[in-house]
Amino acid sequence: MSLPVCSPEQLAQFLGPNTTNAADAANFICNQFTAVNNKFIDTTFAVDNTYLLFSAYLVFSMQLGFAMLCAGSVRAKNTMNIMLTNVLDAAAGGLFYYLFGFAFAFGSPSNGFIGRHFFGLKDVPDAAFDYSYFLYQWAFAIAAAGITSGSIAERTQFVAYLIYSSFLTGFVYPVVSHWFWAVDGWASPNNTGNLLFGTGVIDFAGSGVVHMVGGIAGLWGALIEGPRIGRFDHTGRAIALRGHSATLVVLGTFMLWFGWYGFNPGSFTKILGVYESGNYYGQWSAIGRTAVTTTLAGCTAALTTLFGKRILSGHWNVTDVCNGLLGGFAAITAGCSVVEPWAAIVCGFIAALVLIGFNKLAEKVSYDDPLEAAQLHGGCGAWGIIFTALFAKKEYVNQVYPGKPGRSYGLLMGGGGKLLGAHVIQILVIIGWVSATMGPLFFVLNKMKLLRISTEDELAGMDLTRHGGFAYAYEDESHRHGIQLRKIEPNDSSSTPTT
Amino acid sequence: MSLPVCSPEQLAQFLGPNTTNAADAANFICNQFTAVNNKFIDTTFAVDNTYLLFSAYLVFSMQLGFAMLCAGSVRAKNTMNIMLTNVLDAAAGGLFYYLFGFAFAFGSPSNGFIGRHFFGLKDVPDAAFDYSYFLYQWAFAIAAAGITSGSIAERTQFVAYLIYSSFLTGFVYPVVSHWFWAVDGWASPNNTGNLLFGTGVIDFAGSGVVHMVGGIAGLWGALIEGPRIGRFDHTGRAIALRGHSATLVVLGTFMLWFGWYGFNPGSFTKILGVYESGNYYGQWSAIGRTAVTTTLAGCTAALTTLFGKRILSGHWNVTDVCNGLLGGFAAITAGCSVVEPWAAIVCGFIAALVLIGFNKLAEKVSYDDPLEAAQLHGGCGAWGIIFTALFAKKEYVNQVYPGKPGRSYGLLMGGGGKLLGAHVIQILVIIGWVSATMGPLFFVLNKMKLLRISTEDELAGMDLTRHGGFAYAYEDESHRHGIQLRKIEPNDSSSTPTT
Amino acid sequence: MSLPVCSPEQLAQFLGPNTTNAADAANFICNQFTAVNNKFIDTTFAVDNTYLLFSAYLVFSMQLGFAMLCAGSVRAKNTMNIMLTNVLDAAAGGLFYYLFGFAFAFGSPSNGFIGRHFFGLKDVPDAAFDYSYFLYQWAFAIAAAGITSGSIAERTQFVAYLIYSSFLTGFVYPVVSHWFWAVDGWASPNNTGNLLFGTGVIDFAGSGVVHMVGGIAGLWGALIEGPRIGRFDHTGRAIALRGHSATLVVLGTFMLWFGWYGFNPGSFTKILGVYESGNYYGQWSAIGRTAVTTTLAGCTAALTTLFGKRILSGHWNVTDVCNGLLGGFAAITAGCSVVEPWAAIVCGFIAALVLIGFNKLAEKVSYDDPLEAAQLHGGCGAWGIIFTALFAKKEYVNQVYPGKPGRSYGLLMGGGGKLLGAHVIQILVIIGWVSATMGPLFFVLNKMKLLRISTEDELAGMDLTRHGGFAYAYEDESHRHGIQLRKIEPNDSSSTPTT
Repeated sequence: MSLPVCSPEQLAQFLGPNTTNAADAANFICNQFTAVNNKFIDTTFAVDNTYLLFSAYLVFSMQLGFAMLCAGSVRAKNTMNIMLTNVLDAAAGGLFYYLFGFAFAFGSPSNGFIGRHFFGLKDVPDAAFDYSYFLYQWAFAIAAAGITSGSIAERTQFVAYLIYSSFLTGFVYPVVSHWFWAVDGWASPNNTGNLLFGTGVIDFAGSGVVHMVGGIAGLWGALIEGPRIGRFDHTGRAIALRGHSATLVVLGTFMLWFGWYGFNPGSFTKILGVYESGNYYGQWSAIGRTAVTTTLAGCTAALTTLFGKRILSGHWNVTDVCNGLLGGFAAITAGCSVVEPWAAIVCGFIAALVLIGFNKLAEKVSYDDPLEAAQLHGGCGAWGIIFTALFAKKEYVNQVYPGKPGRSYGLLMGGGGKLLGAHVIQILVIIGWVSATMGPLFFVLNKMKLLRISTEDELAGMDLTRHGGFAYAYEDESHRHGIQLRKIEPNDSSSTPTT
Repeated sequence: MSLPVCSPEQLAQFLGPNTTNAADAANFICNQFTAVNNKFIDTTFAVDNTYLLFSAYLVFSMQLGFAMLCAGSVRAKNTMNIMLTNVLDAAAGGLFYYLFGFAFAFGSPSNGFIGRHFFGLKDVPDAAFDYSYFLYQWAFAIAAAGITSGSIAERTQFVAYLIYSSFLTGFVYPVVSHWFWAVDGWASPNNTGNLLFGTGVIDFAGSGVVHMVGGIAGLWGALIEGPRIGRFDHTGRAIALRGHSATLVVLGTFMLWFGWYGFNPGSFTKILGVYESGNYYGQWSAIGRTAVTTTLAGCTAALTTLFGKRILSGHWNVTDVCNGLLGGFAAITAGCSVVEPWAAIVCGFIAALVLIGFNKLAEKVSYDDPLEAAQLHGGCGAWGIIFTALFAKKEYVNQVYPGKPGRSYGLLMGGGGKLLGAHVIQILVIIGWVSATMGPLFFVLNKMKLLRISTEDELAGMDLTRHGGFAYAYEDESHRHGIQLRKIEPNDSSSTPTT
Repeated sequence: MSLPVCSPEQLAQFLGPNTTNAADAANFICNQFTAVNNKFIDTTFAVDNTYLLFSAYLVFSMQLGFAMLCAGSVRAKNTMNIMLTNVLDAAAGGLFYYLFGFAFAFGSPSNGFIGRHFFGLKDVPDAAFDYSYFLYQWAFAIAAAGITSGSIAERTQFVAYLIYSSFLTGFVYPVVSHWFWAVDGWASPNNTGNLLFGTGVIDFAGSGVVHMVGGIAGLWGALIEGPRIGRFDHTGRAIALRGHSATLVVLGTFMLWFGWYGFNPGSFTKILGVYESGNYYGQWSAIGRTAVTTTLAGCTAALTTLFGKRILSGHWNVTDVCNGLLGGFAAITAGCSVVEPWAAIVCGFIAALVLIGFNKLAEKVSYDDPLEAAQLHGGCGAWGIIFTALFAKKEYVNQVYPGKPGRSYGLLMGGGGKLLGAHVIQILVIIGWVSATMGPLFFVLNKMKLLRISTEDELAGMDLTRHGGFAYAYEDESHRHGIQLRKIEPNDSSSTPTT
């Protein structure tokens, strides 16, 4: 990052004794270069922070996307409930991640398992972590909890939501992100000490760290609660409980697509990274390529889903296409920075099939997940981890993870099986850790009657029974009974302006 | 910002007479440094304008947020009306702010009260103001008018809206922003002449300048119009007139949250600001910290509202949580850049209580504000001004407002009471100025029968009577009576010609 | 862009033989400057790519805007259909533009008619085109197809949509963008060989290339399909078939406005462009000015439409105002970078009249375009092309298109008629090319019975017959039988106290 050292001693020697004041001349010149160097440092911080801050804002906009996707995917009677959980994800997540989540995730030095520094942002900023980094990681943390809320929608007590969401955002997720992303995480590719299998896990933007964590957590919640009333008939046949607004689903999907450009390309966290100074090809190109692979994986998954579901169901289904698209994104998230654009097409194609397959399986085993969150984020996320181990390109891996040259890369690209080994381990430990933490939590909540709402509440809808009323009122009383109201109104003292 | 001066004379002296051509050598070298310096200037302009432009776009997106928040908070029959006002805020505001609003606000030199330069963007850009700055300030101006429209929703004539909105955006608001933000505003912390109380008012992003102005204007409008029909029964008991879509409220709230990252951190207007060249800590860190304080204040206010309203009303209410969140944002807006993150939590906690309190008060005095705009933007905005005077940190104040060292800072941070004095003055003059301008305007409009719609129109809804029909048509005739339609359609007299 | 050459030979001569090691001293110093120069190159790439990437994301967000605008403008029964086309625009467009669209558009060297390089992004990045450029252009390509889908909404078979959309995004549009934007396009202002009429066409962000192409394509589709059932009665009188949600129209319009800041100012593609190094006025100012002209044109068009339609129809119509606003944007898109802000007001004013006029004409000739897409994007786009030829300012033209000084500029600005001539040619060739390609395509699809849906499907709505059901389900079974349910509820009095 710095200029070559300007040694005034050396320059003074070159100028030699005949120069009137060689030492001062050399100092004069080198001081200028020091100032130039410092200005480059300032400029680099400003550029990188601009990039990271706006990326963080984009990732935050995914919370809006989740809220609308979830709202549209549930029945009207539970809309307020699910949207409230989305707002609180962000809000409670903000406090918990500030108090200790960020410390658990990135507080180096650590024991490799969990961080222990930066509680309440103490000692932030330092040379490695500025406030923008915290903001970016917070936006990631709340995404994980948002995924889980989809799995258990329409039948979960609000208090259970508050408890699991805090636990997930504040502890379960930060620990996983420490393992795979922090400098001293035991499986991190940035670990300068000892790389797992000599390679570390390449989960660039979190197919595992975010999507599988959220999806597996949701899986346990949904399994323990059981399906919504009416989701399967007495013969076990699946009955579609359609969401109340496809418009909101499309709105949410496009917002998530928009935000994913913060999620994936943003995960570089710096754009002024140089591979060879003075060349057009640098980290900005890798970032652009990451945006392209992300786009292509999603597009391919959407088209595959369109035609796949047309064959299976006989119609062109927009909400299925939206889910397929998101499945493609969830899958490419791990490898987006280290694969070629053509490989992203392979990734998206298979992600769509994975989602269709897991959805079939879910119906077969009477598993009910209103947002398909476990199938989509868990299933496609896991595929993305495998995909990366198969298609990561040597050149890109070494550019994006420059610390240790010679590390393993994609099996199908000639990089051997070590990366695949590490990635299989990642899948297993994520399943293990999330199951060992979130599984018992949901189990205990269930035992304490804090998890599932009553049958009456579920039939009536939570908005009416717990949240003060329905989310919508397209016809208000005055409109519906316009004539009667008019007669009553004039005698009502409050109808005339009083103040 | 510039490199140290490269004096060829001095360098030539150092090189001395034995150097063949010391003057040319020195010129050669210093010319290079001059070119380097110029390139840093170019780079800085490009980086800062990138930052400011995208911040402006984010602030603009708040207009979308306002439109959806307002739409969702009113009854379906007035949706078109309120959305039209939001579109016109932006549109009319664009013209008026271009023609004279910006000149009133930032046209230096001024008399301290109102600017008088830059009409129609004449002489823009100059060294201090580029087009991006105008765009950013325009996005602020239209936000103020948007706040007011919420207070008087569902009962105001459209023509009154056009008049007050133009007056507010073109004159009332620009004058206030001149006082507190322009270099020669009488209460501006940037005033190089004479600082009010030796400190000036620190209203960084406008808890007072934007939120209180919009809120107080709304207060007068709503007071003079009186409550909507049916809002209070004959005993004076408040009746909820629920908005027609909680989904739109949540959508709007998230968009506002998203846009607030342009509003608060963007108010630095430059990101390549250096506190100590070559150090990781610079204006980019202060900007990141501002994003963090903003986030934490909103999150805390949302959680406080959630539990507070649960205790008061017995249910978990998503629209109340949204309003609480926005109250936290409105409050932190003044001090976001000069307080510690932990202080932002205090700010948000009290903001939520302030909003709950003012809402209770409003019910008691039969004040009807469909968006709670006066309570939220006026009340929480005022709290934010006080909060800043209590918690502004010395170090941050001097970094963000570097012109005059030794100025006062937060009372509770050991900075004495001068800032608090200045801030109390700010609250009083904003209330005074807005009351003295907008109060009479609404009063005259009311006298001229231009303010409130008729009882018939109010009961039927303005969309039907003034805007050409209802906003929604979920079941059209062909769906409801599919077969008959074909026969009936040609004779249908109710069909009106379209565009 | 580079620093002046640091010649060590010359510097060594200056230092002369008395200097101990003049050559080494000179090399030492010049090597430092070379490193400085390289760092400026790196920084410039990082800054420009940051600018271009976030601009691309903004343009992409217009797809969300289009989806919501289209959804709100059609009847509820066709909502899923039109949203699916919008999702697929982006998805299929992603694949086709990656495979060959980008190559057709920008693959230099070419024959001036069509590019032939970069298929599947082979050889990207190079010194001129990075991945971010591809992403940006892809977001443009899918916008064109989105425009067309509006014209043929509510009556077109989904398979026809897939065919024309691929053809338009993959071939028809890329060829046009090659002509007017690529370095070797026959009418491009960047053509270093031979400028059309010594000036080239100045269609900066695509009033012609994007908007007219999409609009003319839509015109042919809508003409060949004919109007929707019920749009005109047996006497030929127009019957309004109102869209189902004005809220979605406003939401979509604001998103498009937001995204247009990526579309127009983003078309510079680089922000670190210098007109005179070390000066506050640079390409960043031109970019800011472009954002301002865009804003003012839209605002003026919105206000003109508001009052124009008030006079014509007697009410204040929000959806008409939205369309007027978008018409202003479509018109300013060609000249946004080369006109003064005051001229943008003229542009917007006339654009609103053009739209009103074309809409009147459309009714007269029984042309049915549910989104007014041909009128708005075709008509206002054509006006924008003429407008640019009249109002382009000499100074701005030479700054934005620096390659060839002395080129023609706006007729009314004293620049002669050559630019107008070139622009008339542009309008004619776009009409000709799109008619010659899309016209026959729609004709053949129609002949093969692949274009229009059956009468039964049209009356029932495509969502029910082709897409698996209606988009909305506000009342599910439990809600519909509300009365029984209410007895279970604990004495709920529907009016609850509010805040």
